[in-house]
Amino acid sequence: MLILVGMGIHGYKGLSVEAIDAIKGASRVYIEAYTSPVMSKDIDTLRALRDDVVEVHRWFVEDGRRILDEARVGDVVLLSYGDPLIATTHIELLVRARSAGIACKVIHSSSIVTAALGECGLHVYKLGKVASVVVSNPIANTSTYYAIYSNLMQMNHTLLLLEYDKEHGYFLAVDSALMLLLDCEAREHMHVIDEDTFAVVASRVGMEDMSIVGGRIGSLLKYSKEHGFGEPPHTIIVTGSLHFTEVEALKVSATLLDEPIDNSKRVMRKAEIMLSNYIARAYGALSKAREYIMHAKGDDVNKANDMDMDDTIGRLKDMIDNAEYYLSDAERFAREHRYENAILALGYAEGLIDALRYLRDIDPWESKKGRAPQ
Amino acid sequence: MLILVGMGIHGYKGLSVEAIDAIKGASRVYIEAYTSPVMSKDIDTLRALRDDVVEVHRWFVEDGRRILDEARVGDVVLLSYGDPLIATTHIELLVRARSAGIACKVIHSSSIVTAALGECGLHVYKLGKVASVVVSNPIANTSTYYAIYSNLMQMNHTLLLLEYDKEHGYFLAVDSALMLLLDCEAREHMHVIDEDTFAVVASRVGMEDMSIVGGRIGSLLKYSKEHGFGEPPHTIIVTGSLHFTEVEALKVSATLLDEPIDNSKRVMRKAEIMLSNYIARAYGALSKAREYIMHAKGDDVNKANDMDMDDTIGRLKDMIDNAEYYLSDAERFAREHRYENAILALGYAEGLIDALRYLRDIDPWESKKGRAPQ
Repeated sequence: MLILVGMGIHGYKGLSVEAIDAIKGASRVYIEAYTSPVMSKDIDTLRALRDDVVEVHRWFVEDGRRILDEARVGDVVLLSYGDPLIATTHIELLVRARSAGIACKVIHSSSIVTAALGECGLHVYKLGKVASVVVSNPIANTSTYYAIYSNLMQMNHTLLLLEYDKEHGYFLAVDSALMLLLDCEAREHMHVIDEDTFAVVASRVGMEDMSIVGGRIGSLLKYSKEHGFGEPPHTIIVTGSLHFTEVEALKVSATLLDEPIDNSKRVMRKAEIMLSNYIARAYGALSKAREYIMHAKGDDVNKANDMDMDDTIGRLKDMIDNAEYYLSDAERFAREHRYENAILALGYAEGLIDALRYLRDIDPWESKKGRAPQ
Repeated sequence: MLILVGMGIHGYKGLSVEAIDAIKGASRVYIEAYTSPVMSKDIDTLRALRDDVVEVHRWFVEDGRRILDEARVGDVVLLSYGDPLIATTHIELLVRARSAGIACKVIHSSSIVTAALGECGLHVYKLGKVASVVVSNPIANTSTYYAIYSNLMQMNHTLLLLEYDKEHGYFLAVDSALMLLLDCEAREHMHVIDEDTFAVVASRVGMEDMSIVGGRIGSLLKYSKEHGFGEPPHTIIVTGSLHFTEVEALKVSATLLDEPIDNSKRVMRKAEIMLSNYIARAYGALSKAREYIMHAKGDDVNKANDMDMDDTIGRLKDMIDNAEYYLSDAERFAREHRYENAILALGYAEGLIDALRYLRDIDPWESKKGRAPQ
């Protein structure tokens, strides 16, 4: 049997009765500390329980053949930090074992995903997609940046796991992770994250010397330089909108460098940005269009009293009145967060106003670049 | 000291060494089974360890005064299912204790949130916002419905916790939960969920008789009627897009009633629906507008050879040519997933086409209702 055992986040003493029984009774016990860190003192305590615990490397688990061969004839325990199935490597091993007809069992344990959130007093229902910050793959950080964006759009929190590379003794530092995210902002310009964004750094969650520090990213970077965040593991949470009970909880759970703010309010939908700029400009064009029509009518009436001309001016006026109705619809739709409808109504109004430009050579837009949807 | 102890999802044998020490050493041990179910056999086993374990009700923890008073002078353990800080009630108690200067400790444990996902072979990085299905509050289900929608838009999975009401002996059944979601669809019409949506039901995760069944909702409802999903707790996962390793994992981890499908492909953005309908219709209107202009020109040239009229027709043609450019822009923007720009360009084109209607009394739209953005 293959038994995946989670060590949880509390180290050796966090092992369950069931886990200890499995370790004692197994024909072979492996421990892997590359998907997430297992502290060396925990490995020492494990060796006191069983001196034949074998620490294994990434390639050994990824290859997996020896584990599976041994699990065919005996009970093989593979120990890892946290809840074992958080790591896709472990899911893959389990799938291979099950496909090969090998019995499997998973002893779940506490995970940083739920524990870090709870320790900060943040609600699990407000946790958006979990993401990670890595140095080894900048493209992955771009998708993390967009995960934060999407989560903030939904007003949710983003829990960020920081890259850990056991083989190179590498644990991505909090300040480097924050800088990597600011780099994404500098590249992507979506106003997702900047030095004023509020974030929480949860360090060594589940351990004796756990620490939680919250503040704007600028303050966290300064804090990092002056005090540091101590030993890993570290987790960063970019908070979304905060329920007042979450703010209260942060105040007693964390060292706060700044007052918590609602990051989700600082992020605007592309649609909102578009509407707030373009509707105002369209009203400007509308009023110029009206001036033109008033003027044209006066001129025309004095000059010719031409019925056809009168009719045309009346039609142009009717068209511009309609543009105004659609602009006020766009405003209402935007207030109701019906952004698609708002933009369609705005575009339609712009088209009607611009018909004047095509038919009468007048440009009611303040700036030349302004008329066209880009 | 206040010690919140998670029982995890494995029952009594899932308690950690640290948790058992805390229980043994505490001056008082409370267990609450109302935020999530703790099995009665686990409570019996706990009582074998300590016969003075007190089972408490919702109001007792929510009121919390007795727990806090006792925690001032002794070590009080509050035991609960899963990871304790998943429940906001526990976070609130912790905040009150910390505010009152009472020392606190949380012994985390496995949570259904991470365990259910992993047991189904689904990746934690693809988990979107967690939501719940309840009978007591239909409005809450509407926001759950929209959480599924947002998660599917991001191609993420939605883990659904089902309402549990200890006091009324009530555990929301899988089929009722699915029906409640289909009810939301019938009300909201956003094409989020229907009988063909693929979902996974994870039952009794962490227990000996765990079961995982995946299939389209219609098949799951049929399975529920014929076989049932057994004892609670149950969790439903509405999957988003599935990585091939997730599909492989589902095939060996679950009883599959249907082939897994990508639910996220079945959900369309409101913008996509709008664009796919409206662009085609706008092209129809455009071609009618062209016919009108061709005809008008022919007529006019034969009748009067009037320079002014020639000029006007030329201008109308120019306007309609521009409408066509904007429609092709809208198509391109939609292909590039730049939906806001696509809708703005579409609206603008509609406005230009409709200028003909205002100025020449012609309606190039196929249906009368069709012209206006709604």
